[in-house]
Amino acid sequence: MRLESDYFDKSLPHIVINCVIFGFDEEGLKVLTIRYKNSDIWALPAGLVLKEEDIDFSAHRVLKESTNLQNHYLEQFATFGKKDRLNLKGLEKLMVGVGLPTSEDHFMLQRFIAISYLALVDIQKVTLKHDGYSDDIKWLKIDQVPPLIHDHTDILTTALKYLKRNIYHTPIIQYLLPEYFTMKELQQLYEVILQEKLVRTNFQRWMLNKNILERSEKKYTGKAHKAPYLYKFKK
Amino acid sequence: MRLESDYFDKSLPHIVINCVIFGFDEEGLKVLTIRYKNSDIWALPAGLVLKEEDIDFSAHRVLKESTNLQNHYLEQFATFGKKDRLNLKGLEKLMVGVGLPTSEDHFMLQRFIAISYLALVDIQKVTLKHDGYSDDIKWLKIDQVPPLIHDHTDILTTALKYLKRNIYHTPIIQYLLPEYFTMKELQQLYEVILQEKLVRTNFQRWMLNKNILERSEKKYTGKAHKAPYLYKFKK
Repeated sequence: MRLESDYFDKSLPHIVINCVIFGFDEEGLKVLTIRYKNSDIWALPAGLVLKEEDIDFSAHRVLKESTNLQNHYLEQFATFGKKDRLNLKGLEKLMVGVGLPTSEDHFMLQRFIAISYLALVDIQKVTLKHDGYSDDIKWLKIDQVPPLIHDHTDILTTALKYLKRNIYHTPIIQYLLPEYFTMKELQQLYEVILQEKLVRTNFQRWMLNKNILERSEKKYTGKAHKAPYLYKFKK
Repeated sequence: MRLESDYFDKSLPHIVINCVIFGFDEEGLKVLTIRYKNSDIWALPAGLVLKEEDIDFSAHRVLKESTNLQNHYLEQFATFGKKDRLNLKGLEKLMVGVGLPTSEDHFMLQRFIAISYLALVDIQKVTLKHDGYSDDIKWLKIDQVPPLIHDHTDILTTALKYLKRNIYHTPIIQYLLPEYFTMKELQQLYEVILQEKLVRTNFQRWMLNKNILERSEKKYTGKAHKAPYLYKFKK
């Protein structure tokens, strides 16, 4: 998150945008996390709402500030507004780490309500962008994420539930995949989101019956014994 | 919405809660709407977030301020934050109608982001509560709602879509019904939400297969030729 004082001046108070950015590769489902400068504080990417921005636009800006992606799949899924959702001690540590004054009336130390978005990205296409306020920006496997500041762990869990509930009847899963993928990769992605093993033949039949996949002439060129077909989502 | 100046002082700026309160009776699916005092301005029930309240608590308070219902089914479904979502001319008219000053720096005339909840209520159990700022508080059939102020028509439409998407796999529909109901009433409610006619026998089989209904010994005592069974949702 940008932390210049003129960014505070131009933004609405009390409102923050959080982005849960998911990606998928051969290691599994991952989420983009940030470690703030000179600290062990991990957090989700965040940003403020500029006074003349629609909130959806702010979310796109936050995504762009931490990745190179623009106009990408991004969906608002929930707003978090518990009165005590901020970890004030952690926040003061964060502010010291990045060199901000921690006077009680600082813009950052007021109550914030977090409008939360999830982004689904093709991890291969992402170039991570460091800002001056973080020491690390990293894809972490979702079962290896350290405790995050504030209620960010809650926000992440809610995003995962939202994804789980919505991958059955909408084709949003395609945004996590490269253009071409094997049926096995697709099944692995479903399995990691649903957190259950699926039967290969049933999964394949179910998927093909949906009539949203196109089988490509190309075949997987890795080391598999039998080169499997590659699929893509229909336009 | 309460409009006393000490309520403004105690609340967070820029944030408003809107409640889309749905009810169902023999005339169809209805939504609770308010006409502000001395005006033709219709709106959804709304309220602010007190500085020491969790936002979910604020939403429960807003529901309680317009009905007598407490701790009722209420779910956050979306946050609306377009920069120009307020109809400022309408808002000034509203403020004149209720006797508020309309100076440009008034609390009400700043930008507001609307965290929106939907409530599903048993219409028979509701006693509508007038506040001093409205001339009318009314259940309106969803196809007879006049244009609402700001983006409230959008908020209503989004709430309806949310309901439509969620009544298949969750039993939330029960909150719109009295304890006992006929299969026909249940089908009518599904039909009005899904906006399509369903085949009676298929609907009945699907519903009974879900194993969430209990058939009561009681029968409907209205004027039907064959008195149909009454059902209730299992605990």
